[in-house]
Amino acid sequence: MFRGFSTATMRPYDGILRASSLIAVVSCLVLYGCEADTQSPAAAAPAPKVILIIGDGMDDHQITIARNYLVGYNGRLRLDDMPERSSVQVQTVAEDDPAVPVYVADSANSATAMSAGIVTSTGRIATTAKTDRDVTTIMELAIAAGFGTGIVTTSSVTDATPASFIAHVSERLCEAPTRMVRTNERIPSFSTDCSADFKTRGGRGSIAEQIAASQLDVVLGGGAQYFAEVAENETATTVREIAASNGYRVIGTEHELASLPPGGKVLGLFARGTMPVQWRGAGDAAAALVARQDDGRPQLPEPFMCEPNPAFAGTPRLSEMARAALQRLDDGRSFMLMIESASIDKQSHLRRPCGHIGELAQLDETLGLVLDYAREHPETLVLVTADHGQAATLVPQTSVLAPLKAASAGYFARLRTREGAVMGVNYATNDSLLQEDHTGVQVPLFASGLDTRDLPAMVPQTDIFRISAEHLRLIE
Amino acid sequence: MFRGFSTATMRPYDGILRASSLIAVVSCLVLYGCEADTQSPAAAAPAPKVILIIGDGMDDHQITIARNYLVGYNGRLRLDDMPERSSVQVQTVAEDDPAVPVYVADSANSATAMSAGIVTSTGRIATTAKTDRDVTTIMELAIAAGFGTGIVTTSSVTDATPASFIAHVSERLCEAPTRMVRTNERIPSFSTDCSADFKTRGGRGSIAEQIAASQLDVVLGGGAQYFAEVAENETATTVREIAASNGYRVIGTEHELASLPPGGKVLGLFARGTMPVQWRGAGDAAAALVARQDDGRPQLPEPFMCEPNPAFAGTPRLSEMARAALQRLDDGRSFMLMIESASIDKQSHLRRPCGHIGELAQLDETLGLVLDYAREHPETLVLVTADHGQAATLVPQTSVLAPLKAASAGYFARLRTREGAVMGVNYATNDSLLQEDHTGVQVPLFASGLDTRDLPAMVPQTDIFRISAEHLRLIE
Repeated sequence: MFRGFSTATMRPYDGILRASSLIAVVSCLVLYGCEADTQSPAAAAPAPKVILIIGDGMDDHQITIARNYLVGYNGRLRLDDMPERSSVQVQTVAEDDPAVPVYVADSANSATAMSAGIVTSTGRIATTAKTDRDVTTIMELAIAAGFGTGIVTTSSVTDATPASFIAHVSERLCEAPTRMVRTNERIPSFSTDCSADFKTRGGRGSIAEQIAASQLDVVLGGGAQYFAEVAENETATTVREIAASNGYRVIGTEHELASLPPGGKVLGLFARGTMPVQWRGAGDAAAALVARQDDGRPQLPEPFMCEPNPAFAGTPRLSEMARAALQRLDDGRSFMLMIESASIDKQSHLRRPCGHIGELAQLDETLGLVLDYAREHPETLVLVTADHGQAATLVPQTSVLAPLKAASAGYFARLRTREGAVMGVNYATNDSLLQEDHTGVQVPLFASGLDTRDLPAMVPQTDIFRISAEHLRLIE
Repeated sequence: MFRGFSTATMRPYDGILRASSLIAVVSCLVLYGCEADTQSPAAAAPAPKVILIIGDGMDDHQITIARNYLVGYNGRLRLDDMPERSSVQVQTVAEDDPAVPVYVADSANSATAMSAGIVTSTGRIATTAKTDRDVTTIMELAIAAGFGTGIVTTSSVTDATPASFIAHVSERLCEAPTRMVRTNERIPSFSTDCSADFKTRGGRGSIAEQIAASQLDVVLGGGAQYFAEVAENETATTVREIAASNGYRVIGTEHELASLPPGGKVLGLFARGTMPVQWRGAGDAAAALVARQDDGRPQLPEPFMCEPNPAFAGTPRLSEMARAALQRLDDGRSFMLMIESASIDKQSHLRRPCGHIGELAQLDETLGLVLDYAREHPETLVLVTADHGQAATLVPQTSVLAPLKAASAGYFARLRTREGAVMGVNYATNDSLLQEDHTGVQVPLFASGLDTRDLPAMVPQTDIFRISAEHLRLIE
């Protein structure tokens, strides 16, 4: 039985976020008990376990920006002390011709590579490009083998990354019954047509309905709005009610999460959509276009620091959700648990550096808890990776060519760090007011509990599925 | 005696660059002999050796862009098969207050971290920030220990990266006697004042003079112009003549390099300044600002491919220089060899994707030769890393928000790849006409010949010095 994590390995990022740190310490005392490490009863042959942590959009720029801000340029994140590091070549193909690569992924196709071991086109949830065939995911293999399974995320549980581990649908936006067929006039490529996926047409229905009908043991995250919809072909029964009739205890508050009785399946929906993030720029500051003075000289934005996001109050931390999931799954069986910090990506899209730094901090804090679990259960493979790159880049806070009036042509922020310096963060993949694009950079892979000789410097993204499934002995 | 590399491990990037490939194959036949691998005579206790390969500006975006172009999105570079991969936190401090970090480095301070194991300020060559003290480099330690030493680069041998391994001067631009004190009116921060480094003032003189006076066994690269200058306090004697009187055989052509007699010190200067790069965009195409049509829609640049750069004809390849260095250094003693592909950085500054892809290809080709050497000499530690990040980012070739008229606000190129797709490369750290800035991202570290348990997921940049010096038993 997993009891919690030791105080020695808790390193909340203290200093400017005293309130947040205090909450963490109190959480430790109240929620976790903070006992000394207790050893599990030694089983004859412990069942292998996999915990896959995905930082959505967590590329090397994101990690460096977060490290500099959280622990300083000489500091170390928990990620930095992982025994093994590789990189992952993200793989995407064109929908109309799957023989042709696309060099920048989205979270749907990249999560499908990791969950099902296939390369597909953007927007697809565990289905093949062009031919639209369903592909078995590692969660489905684990369920069939009688293993425990869990999905934890700070996005809607129906969002592309978690969905790709359990659902099969041709377009990621088909999250709920009313969203299966929609027209987006502004951006036609964002229109959806999942009519072939309707249950009445022989499909599996929307992503929420597929989760409600699933045999996952634990599903925790946001997205309550999608489960509040009336299910397809029903007159009043909601997706949430279908989940309940399928055996799910459906919860929605931090208190319910902390006081969960043992046993049974649980579906936790802690926000209407994406869960609020823990930090924001002081006074809600974000990156902005660089203004110009009359003589053409740039008016660089004022440096700012991060502060707690008021909207985060009452939201379960990622580590609290992960702890609850581990407590439920720790019954001696093998299990497959996917934990996602989703808003590293979403906040970078929105050019909010404190947002993505805070969510990377949530991931690193959760990694501490997971590594504590793995220390007690050495049969646990821990993988940490990203699905694709993001727009934020760490650049000089003033250009080397500032005397020539040079400054970022994109959205630019300057963060004041606790070590007395200023860090420049640039967002310049496109010039729209709306949001940034992803990037196609190879992404990090960290591992512990794996024979290190198995990992060369780079692995294709589909290897995340292979490595996980081999560790669980689901494939050979 | 190292004889060359086997044909089996030669994988020149064939296809579009048939001429270049042909040259490589002919080189193999003519210059290398291409014999089957020959084992070195087994020594009782082989002397440890270190080969440090630096890709200037070679971050994960650069590697992914190069991989996609050179071997395809499912292909593998030699880098990708290295047994060990970590990342390096680049470290820089402010000149006026070395307690305060700067989050983006230049090649001088980052090379000093690797060569001498200290964190210093930008522009400094193996000297301390603010206090301007000289710091002993690994090459100096190796010379003092009676080991072989070599520096190979595609930049001027006086440029920041190579200079930091052997010279000590307060500002990187002090490459030659006439460059010690200069005023740059356009960019005052590019002005130099190395008057305290004049030999007549008790200093060590310009970088070229320090190299000429050094005990390095092999120095190969560009920068002939700096050695053609009259030395400080001389009336007619050039720096080159001083090098010759110090025992250097000074050469300047590919033919002289290929027909070097054995023994003695060699200084090869194969270009006036930076050596020409092997590739350019077809018709000299490079990234450009995205033009707008009357209705605001972006006029995306036409995709292009890479072609041989005519100016490269007659220039020794990086691998040829590396081979010559290895042949001279392979005398049974320990040695420290630094090999730099310098123009990955310089071409990214200039927004020339084919330029930096071609120079990364030169690095990967050279790595093949180095790994062949290390296979025959397993006491060789091979490290491959970058000094800092660069501006090029791999982005969608058309923005996801293209229907909203979104496109890069920076300099943008679209490369047509051999696998039938188009790759978007963006440069947007600043909006100057002149060049891009560096980035502060953590950079890759690849290793072979090291106990892999020694490398966690991240090491500080000063550890490159420590790891190399420990392997050579120069420090404990």
